[in-house]
Amino acid sequence: MADSLPDTNERELRLDPPIVRDNRGDLSLHFIASVRPAIRTGDVARLKGLVAPLHAADVGDLLEALGPDERTEFVRLLGDDFDFAVLTEVDDKLRARLIAALPVASVVEGVRRLDSDDAVTVLEDLPTEEREAILRQLPLVDRTAVARSLEYPEDSAGRLMQTEFIAVPPFWDVGRAIDYMREEDDLPTEFYRLIVVDAGFHPVGSVALDRLLRSKRPVLISDITDSEIKAVKAVDDQEDVARLFERYNLVTAPVVDTDGRLVGVITVDDIVDVIEEEADEDIRRLGGVGDEEATDAVGYVARSRIPWLLINVLTGFLAAAVIGLFDGTIEQMVALAVLMPIVASMGGNAGTQAMTVTVRAIATRDIAARSAYRVIGREAMVGLINGVAVALCVGLGAGLWFASPALGVVIAVALILNIVVAGVVGALIPLALDTMKIDPAVASGVILTAITDVTGFFVFLGLAGWWFGFL
Amino acid sequence: MADSLPDTNERELRLDPPIVRDNRGDLSLHFIASVRPAIRTGDVARLKGLVAPLHAADVGDLLEALGPDERTEFVRLLGDDFDFAVLTEVDDKLRARLIAALPVASVVEGVRRLDSDDAVTVLEDLPTEEREAILRQLPLVDRTAVARSLEYPEDSAGRLMQTEFIAVPPFWDVGRAIDYMREEDDLPTEFYRLIVVDAGFHPVGSVALDRLLRSKRPVLISDITDSEIKAVKAVDDQEDVARLFERYNLVTAPVVDTDGRLVGVITVDDIVDVIEEEADEDIRRLGGVGDEEATDAVGYVARSRIPWLLINVLTGFLAAAVIGLFDGTIEQMVALAVLMPIVASMGGNAGTQAMTVTVRAIATRDIAARSAYRVIGREAMVGLINGVAVALCVGLGAGLWFASPALGVVIAVALILNIVVAGVVGALIPLALDTMKIDPAVASGVILTAITDVTGFFVFLGLAGWWFGFL
Repeated sequence: MADSLPDTNERELRLDPPIVRDNRGDLSLHFIASVRPAIRTGDVARLKGLVAPLHAADVGDLLEALGPDERTEFVRLLGDDFDFAVLTEVDDKLRARLIAALPVASVVEGVRRLDSDDAVTVLEDLPTEEREAILRQLPLVDRTAVARSLEYPEDSAGRLMQTEFIAVPPFWDVGRAIDYMREEDDLPTEFYRLIVVDAGFHPVGSVALDRLLRSKRPVLISDITDSEIKAVKAVDDQEDVARLFERYNLVTAPVVDTDGRLVGVITVDDIVDVIEEEADEDIRRLGGVGDEEATDAVGYVARSRIPWLLINVLTGFLAAAVIGLFDGTIEQMVALAVLMPIVASMGGNAGTQAMTVTVRAIATRDIAARSAYRVIGREAMVGLINGVAVALCVGLGAGLWFASPALGVVIAVALILNIVVAGVVGALIPLALDTMKIDPAVASGVILTAITDVTGFFVFLGLAGWWFGFL
Repeated sequence: MADSLPDTNERELRLDPPIVRDNRGDLSLHFIASVRPAIRTGDVARLKGLVAPLHAADVGDLLEALGPDERTEFVRLLGDDFDFAVLTEVDDKLRARLIAALPVASVVEGVRRLDSDDAVTVLEDLPTEEREAILRQLPLVDRTAVARSLEYPEDSAGRLMQTEFIAVPPFWDVGRAIDYMREEDDLPTEFYRLIVVDAGFHPVGSVALDRLLRSKRPVLISDITDSEIKAVKAVDDQEDVARLFERYNLVTAPVVDTDGRLVGVITVDDIVDVIEEEADEDIRRLGGVGDEEATDAVGYVARSRIPWLLINVLTGFLAAAVIGLFDGTIEQMVALAVLMPIVASMGGNAGTQAMTVTVRAIATRDIAARSAYRVIGREAMVGLINGVAVALCVGLGAGLWFASPALGVVIAVALILNIVVAGVVGALIPLALDTMKIDPAVASGVILTAITDVTGFFVFLGLAGWWFGFL
């Protein structure tokens, strides 16, 4: 964000730019290798020369590629030339570690130069005491804006917003608005719309900059105001804000406090990160992993993944207990033990399909997810169709393998039942969790496979026991 | 995108706006219910009154909520008042069905009013013949732009770009650029940057509109040009373009042809949809579902999901065959049949965790995913730590249940082995698929559980057979 035009000195260095990214868009290994000796030998001039032409995002990736000691040394060597915008481009934990390694004075100076939303990103995860110490040393104007944003809940619009924005009354003319912008000092780095506010500082519309540019100076702001405004509340969750941006293709949205007064502006570049983050969270939760980062230590990763595995131990014993009910049946017909994992795993897979579709429909607030009966009914029908198809294949295969048509029929019936149940349960679990205001992506998988395993084993072994008269 | 200010007539209707969305941001059921009678009775005036204040995205959601017959009737009743921008807000298949139901003349008129990128979206999935018929009737300028975009591959930057843009030479001054914009007719609906081009029409930089606005008329464009330009090639894949926007927080990127000449511009609002789409694709592929939409018929959904289930039938028989190798062992000790699903499912879960993390690291081009050895080594370590933890719990539980410490030891050893294998395989499969240029999210799950099932059954039953001397 905080780009500025390079001065001539930097421009010269750029004449022969190193190839920073390879043709896949990844940071080139050659470039990383060229930075390392400069850090090791403490060659500040060379390091600055290598880093100066880079975008903050490139420097962020470079930091993530370096070793822990190299990272702090890198930041220390760059000194005041280290752009704090880089810290908004690395993962949360790396950011905290880098800030902890810097002297407070450098952090204060670095934060002061950022837009308020980036300053909030840098400060929000710090321990309260450290954060207060830094805030106290910021100039009053910056401090007030940043402190106010930090008072809003985590992952809220208030944390995302910039407090630098241009607000104009509707009765100004274009000329006056342009003159005001030329004089105003504390402008955001880049902005795309002016916010039009009434006397109470409530947003009533916005003016796109291209519209402003194309209008003559005497035209009234009210005549070019787009009154179809989508304001968000500072306490709104960032996921809801992202949906709003997505739905209406917004580029800018005004943020208002509980009294409806304008307190900030959110721009789409912040939303892009939120959308990526939220989708990432869904995928990770469905996969049963937490918020681990590539830079985390093995011990941390193992700890973050163990809870689901332990829950799976319990559900595993539950499924085993169901099989245990039929140990006599299995003793008389080992073929059942051989085939039973097929019934369970087909149910698990069909259920995962239904669950994935339902979780996404809820996450994207798809209209179809609103009628729970319809969703569940659909999944039951799909389960019935695919259950019959799969049952034919498996029933035929199993019947031939063990030369027992009866066994083929038993496994076929068990499969149909289990796949229909899997479809219904796969849709039901996320819908129920959503109603209870629990993220449907969390936990759905483990509950689902527990149910499909138990159902699969029970129906297959029970049916076989009854059919073959072992019970 | 194609918003225009409502005229006074529409403004009056808006005085008492119906509540279109509930407090969760979903289209309100009450609003949907109020539209239905107007469609049924063919009350055009009432329908127009209800729809006029809506954003195209709201109308799109409304269409998705209506029944198939209501939808076509809705579009037919609105006639020329139906905004074709709505078609860019509904899913692909619904769009195709609506266009097929409209007379060609209406489609031509509707497409003509769209920006070129939206026109491409509306036309790209049509059958070639129908598309050609519509293109032939478009005015020459529009036709050339749209036809050229359509020549680029699906999901490429060329399909996403707008061909309406403002390009200025660096030697113009601000005043001349502004006058040019005021005179130019064929402008994009909203834009945020001018593209600066050299004499060969190659982009050399861009000027943010706010920068332009704040500069005096005699200032040269070259003096306010941001030369850190990230151009994309028209043939680039949209996913790579999205990563570029995300990485550098871009709002606009120029699109160039193979000779580096400017042919269009991509804006961030199109990228937001791409990011959502690509993340959605990853989640769906991991869940083993295709591109089904909520508006699809049950038969279509069932068909799209059956391939993975059939592959799962094969892998299921493979796992069953492994168990079959040990049928003698199971006959002598039914406890093995009771416990074996625990070993398989723990491996499946641990492997899914490793796979999810690796798939995401590859998708987000995380630097850590580049060193395959490191990723696999990490997962092996995590597997060892969590394998030991899980093995202790399960080993103790199983040993007590069947009053056999030896059985506890056997299942513990089998679990550790299977969970380490699961971690390694979970990382290896997506990395290998990526090297083979296959989307790592596809197929990973089925291959993974096949391997963890086979390994789990083989190690547990084999170890037990050897230990207890049944083999």
